[in-house]
Amino acid sequence: MSANTFGELFRVTTFGESHGPALGAVIDGCPPGIDIDEAYIQAQLDRRKPGNNRYTTPRREADQVKILSGVFEGKTTGTPIGLVIENTDQRSRDYSDIKDLFRPGHADYTYAHKYGHRDYRGGGRSSARETAMRVAAGAIAQQFLQQQGIQIRAAMTQMGGVAASQLDWQEVHNNPFFFPDASKIDDLDALIRELKKAGDSVGAKIRVEASGVPAGLGEPVFDRLDADLAKALMSINAVKAVSIGDGFAVVEQRGSEHRDEMTPEGFCSNHAGGVLGGISSGQTVTAEIALKPTSSIKLEGKTIDQFGNAQTISTHGRHDPCVGIRAVPIAEAMMALTLIDHWLRQRAQNGHVTTNVPHLK
Amino acid sequence: MSANTFGELFRVTTFGESHGPALGAVIDGCPPGIDIDEAYIQAQLDRRKPGNNRYTTPRREADQVKILSGVFEGKTTGTPIGLVIENTDQRSRDYSDIKDLFRPGHADYTYAHKYGHRDYRGGGRSSARETAMRVAAGAIAQQFLQQQGIQIRAAMTQMGGVAASQLDWQEVHNNPFFFPDASKIDDLDALIRELKKAGDSVGAKIRVEASGVPAGLGEPVFDRLDADLAKALMSINAVKAVSIGDGFAVVEQRGSEHRDEMTPEGFCSNHAGGVLGGISSGQTVTAEIALKPTSSIKLEGKTIDQFGNAQTISTHGRHDPCVGIRAVPIAEAMMALTLIDHWLRQRAQNGHVTTNVPHLK
Amino acid sequence: MSANTFGELFRVTTFGESHGPALGAVIDGCPPGIDIDEAYIQAQLDRRKPGNNRYTTPRREADQVKILSGVFEGKTTGTPIGLVIENTDQRSRDYSDIKDLFRPGHADYTYAHKYGHRDYRGGGRSSARETAMRVAAGAIAQQFLQQQGIQIRAAMTQMGGVAASQLDWQEVHNNPFFFPDASKIDDLDALIRELKKAGDSVGAKIRVEASGVPAGLGEPVFDRLDADLAKALMSINAVKAVSIGDGFAVVEQRGSEHRDEMTPEGFCSNHAGGVLGGISSGQTVTAEIALKPTSSIKLEGKTIDQFGNAQTISTHGRHDPCVGIRAVPIAEAMMALTLIDHWLRQRAQNGHVTTNVPHLK
Amino acid sequence: MSANTFGELFRVTTFGESHGPALGAVIDGCPPGIDIDEAYIQAQLDRRKPGNNRYTTPRREADQVKILSGVFEGKTTGTPIGLVIENTDQRSRDYSDIKDLFRPGHADYTYAHKYGHRDYRGGGRSSARETAMRVAAGAIAQQFLQQQGIQIRAAMTQMGGVAASQLDWQEVHNNPFFFPDASKIDDLDALIRELKKAGDSVGAKIRVEASGVPAGLGEPVFDRLDADLAKALMSINAVKAVSIGDGFAVVEQRGSEHRDEMTPEGFCSNHAGGVLGGISSGQTVTAEIALKPTSSIKLEGKTIDQFGNAQTISTHGRHDPCVGIRAVPIAEAMMALTLIDHWLRQRAQNGHVTTNVPHLK
Repeated sequence: MSANTFGELFRVTTFGESHGPALGAVIDGCPPGIDIDEAYIQAQLDRRKPGNNRYTTPRREADQVKILSGVFEGKTTGTPIGLVIENTDQRSRDYSDIKDLFRPGHADYTYAHKYGHRDYRGGGRSSARETAMRVAAGAIAQQFLQQQGIQIRAAMTQMGGVAASQLDWQEVHNNPFFFPDASKIDDLDALIRELKKAGDSVGAKIRVEASGVPAGLGEPVFDRLDADLAKALMSINAVKAVSIGDGFAVVEQRGSEHRDEMTPEGFCSNHAGGVLGGISSGQTVTAEIALKPTSSIKLEGKTIDQFGNAQTISTHGRHDPCVGIRAVPIAEAMMALTLIDHWLRQRAQNGHVTTNVPHLK
Repeated sequence: MSANTFGELFRVTTFGESHGPALGAVIDGCPPGIDIDEAYIQAQLDRRKPGNNRYTTPRREADQVKILSGVFEGKTTGTPIGLVIENTDQRSRDYSDIKDLFRPGHADYTYAHKYGHRDYRGGGRSSARETAMRVAAGAIAQQFLQQQGIQIRAAMTQMGGVAASQLDWQEVHNNPFFFPDASKIDDLDALIRELKKAGDSVGAKIRVEASGVPAGLGEPVFDRLDADLAKALMSINAVKAVSIGDGFAVVEQRGSEHRDEMTPEGFCSNHAGGVLGGISSGQTVTAEIALKPTSSIKLEGKTIDQFGNAQTISTHGRHDPCVGIRAVPIAEAMMALTLIDHWLRQRAQNGHVTTNVPHLK
Repeated sequence: MSANTFGELFRVTTFGESHGPALGAVIDGCPPGIDIDEAYIQAQLDRRKPGNNRYTTPRREADQVKILSGVFEGKTTGTPIGLVIENTDQRSRDYSDIKDLFRPGHADYTYAHKYGHRDYRGGGRSSARETAMRVAAGAIAQQFLQQQGIQIRAAMTQMGGVAASQLDWQEVHNNPFFFPDASKIDDLDALIRELKKAGDSVGAKIRVEASGVPAGLGEPVFDRLDADLAKALMSINAVKAVSIGDGFAVVEQRGSEHRDEMTPEGFCSNHAGGVLGGISSGQTVTAEIALKPTSSIKLEGKTIDQFGNAQTISTHGRHDPCVGIRAVPIAEAMMALTLIDHWLRQRAQNGHVTTNVPHLK
Repeated sequence: MSANTFGELFRVTTFGESHGPALGAVIDGCPPGIDIDEAYIQAQLDRRKPGNNRYTTPRREADQVKILSGVFEGKTTGTPIGLVIENTDQRSRDYSDIKDLFRPGHADYTYAHKYGHRDYRGGGRSSARETAMRVAAGAIAQQFLQQQGIQIRAAMTQMGGVAASQLDWQEVHNNPFFFPDASKIDDLDALIRELKKAGDSVGAKIRVEASGVPAGLGEPVFDRLDADLAKALMSINAVKAVSIGDGFAVVEQRGSEHRDEMTPEGFCSNHAGGVLGGISSGQTVTAEIALKPTSSIKLEGKTIDQFGNAQTISTHGRHDPCVGIRAVPIAEAMMALTLIDHWLRQRAQNGHVTTNVPHLK
């Protein structure tokens, strides 16, 4: 039972609360001899961290990761990699205003039922702050995958009613929304301003892709690549839906349209999103996720306190109007952690990972 | 590494291929002393089995389950429950026409890459026939859950362009489509006729719900109830998308709309689908899945053989025009297997499962 | 939580009770393409099965194993291998004499406490009959290991006071005791006669070895090869002690004696039993186990019934005077299951299994 | 695959090398609401730490544990407990003399084969330093178990030829050898002096017991309490044998002697060591382990370097003449980690842990 562990062969266990002394992770099962560039890990963390720009929360966290074990002279040793990030921005603030309140849309109420007590200091373990460790671990996985020719990338393709009309991956690096459509940046900026003014928030859609994935990754019948990816992505805070390939659109498709026909030159289409029967086909693996709007907003709402009394709540803290933005590097990390695990599983069973050939020898 | 096992505490391992002598499952971790009604298991299997009506494949399989261990005098003993269903309808047919072909939309190609060989007799392990064992195991889980006050139900809410306008759970038992809207049965019937004529197929949407779920089920941060449910449902053959609560609609929602406000009388809405921070809230857990259209159709399509040559394929076998119909009891089973596992995990950690009270004592 | 599962990558799950309709096992994670000789599996089962000779219980069980899945045209497919043995010798006997009694030395009392009920038909799940499935699964593992150059063998080296003076592996095949010393067979025969006359039983010691094991198998720090082997062997019914290499003799050894010095020609000795720091050294892996005397004996003993009343018990059934004899093939099986699992783990992490070279390149 | 994780429900994952910046552990699955006394954890660590007295290595390590998460206001929260101990005594020494040598009896050679590289700074991950984290985690488990009425204790009962003649548990606290026989302390002192003079080392035997264990803990058939305990104890550095109850003595016992007869007043003896059929009987659980003599000694020995050349080695560092002494608190910790895991598993399956009643209701 591994509530705080992800993966079977590349196992990432995270710990730490938003208001405790530190966050940490242990990676068990990383192959030895992998070149690790610490600057790359930090760069991925910096993409996720708050206070990066005016569209996200102004909380400043250094998010400086320290490697405590498992890497020697720039290479993994095969022993567990211990990672720690100290929490530096823990203001000794007064929690008395929310101490007894269950914040709607948050995990306060469900954690209280689960554990029988209340950590009133904030999100605690349920805070998205935990995802910093996923990004750090994912950055290690990505270095391994890149050395195998696998590339992962993600973008926010919709925020509220503003949807991207094109998928320009270069543009994703040019704006603070990780948005793949330069023509919509002004609309996004306007929407954020409007939300801040209204004290409200909005949801988002993210697309994540992996190219160069060899055919043959994934296990029948439960640990399918798409099933594990669905779990990985749904485990990101605020995610309410996951789709692979054409997703919900398949409901209205005909078989003659959906099945991806094959020719000696390759597949004619990719409605499947790179996964057939739970196993990668060699095509690009594509997934989309929906993130709900931030629950902590200024607009007053009804709630109860832990004694069952009716109360109202209004949050004036430092919160993103759209949590979806910062989830882009997290989605990449979870795709990476899913793929490296299945890559190693395939190698364990076959001694090699099958190559992306169009036909069997 | 448990490719063919689902669950952590209530572990279901399945085995068997569509054309082998038998299918089977082992349930390890079922609590002792649970009353088991074998007729209930068989009834659930009968809902899934092919040949039930004219809308599904006319293949006839008795799907008669035998309990080999773990049940004594009508009660579980606490030891592993072994289940077997013999394959009785294995025609010794000639496979030579498809022996070398990769069927588009099927797992032929990906399994060949994964395992380095080809089982040309048909779907083999990737066949939906495997899900019979999930339904059998799920029926045992459901008997336990019902004794805890948890009720699970599912319905097909859309097939192709025909969507239910209402959610009439009584109606689900009255038609062969498990459809919750009596006014649309004729449309569904017409659509199936049209598809059969055209030699084509269509996708479907299924809704599955669990009521009576106590607050507190689910684990932070990876083994969230919604994440495990996403994996469970995505692992069903042909599923391409999973959503919880409002699903993809949250992208365009505002925080003031989505957050479910709370009053001493309970939650004011259920946009979250019964899960907050990955943990059940006591509200009804709701999920939807999208199933792709059947890949085996009469309409000719392009493909390759295993030597890489261009070929065409047209399937004349006994296949459902909409695989989504028979997935209704499978979705219920996977919901049940997910919930029983988290129910036991909660009991392991706390010694009890928290009750559905509106506030903490 | 996998009470009835052994292994991480080569996972064996067993089910079935001694008095139920069948025993079974599922092997999940067996690599594809392995040649499987069913006659070899049956031959290993026949070595274990009761009624083989006059020294073991005269119960006759066909122990005919059926492969239900995972093997096609003589090769493993990579999908789970389902195995079943039907129980054919279930006499419909009268259990009323022992129905309420806890048999001393048996699991009756502890199972009753664990599960809160009593299966009065006999050992049930705690019966050594379950080990038939271990032998079947071990025989599949052994075929894989043999193809990798790894050879496993075991012998009973002591029964009661009769200890082998030499380790003649050829002799092991010549006598029904699996004993490696021809000069002691008459003593063993006499001891069995004496025990039968007295209505008593005696313990035994078994030695099991694996040669050709490549250096590098085993994981620090918990899943050491010797730790997993200790668990594997201790899990055999009646085993009370496990030792690796020199075992308890190391308590009185000096470091200068115990450390196995190394030369370019290899190790100078093998006090370590082929494992250093939990990882195989390339030397022969050696282990010994102690098996307690059969608990079911004719000699009357004190016990209680399930109501707490004082009772006496005397067993007149068909029982081995020394359960250790039949444990020889079981010990081989557990060694095989441990080694194949670590072999696959090493391959997963490194992409290859290091060879038995005397020094690193 | 959890090489560096112990346990199924109370999962302890450790990381860190002897010469890296820190050691750490994550405990996942500790129930919420348990009172944690940090001073008790530190006290257990102090019993294990080197430099405690003149009989163990004079290396000084503060072994100051920091709790990074999972404990709030003196109670566990139910979220993962992160623990870190910084390595403070990492002398920047010159390793050139042993850089290329494989030290006989150490894991240098086997790790090199496993990982394909050499961490020449010393034991690294294979160092017994890692066991500090086991002691810290075990101290948390022990606080839980004590609150359930379970008491664990261990003693060194033999060092070389000096064996305890009595088991005086009070005396264990009075001498630096954790020895239960005051009359032998002078002999032990003399033996250590002799070994230091000779530049040699010696083995040891440790006994560990748990009383107050309820009947019913342990799972058939692989995850037996004794099997998991065997693994736990064999995973301690230098352990070469594990026995339960009478251990290897059972080989020469008769069934009439070994089986522990039962009366309404309880068991008449405890040859079984508190475990029947792999499940606790309510009697005291007893185990013994054998630890090999320290491999790093002054006496010159033959070895090879990593190029395969013949070399000699003589260790002049700070090493214990008997590593067994410091293993006493480690054995207690591993007993505690094994028991808490099975205690929680029993509670998961039954909703309660059966009480130590002499007969079933």
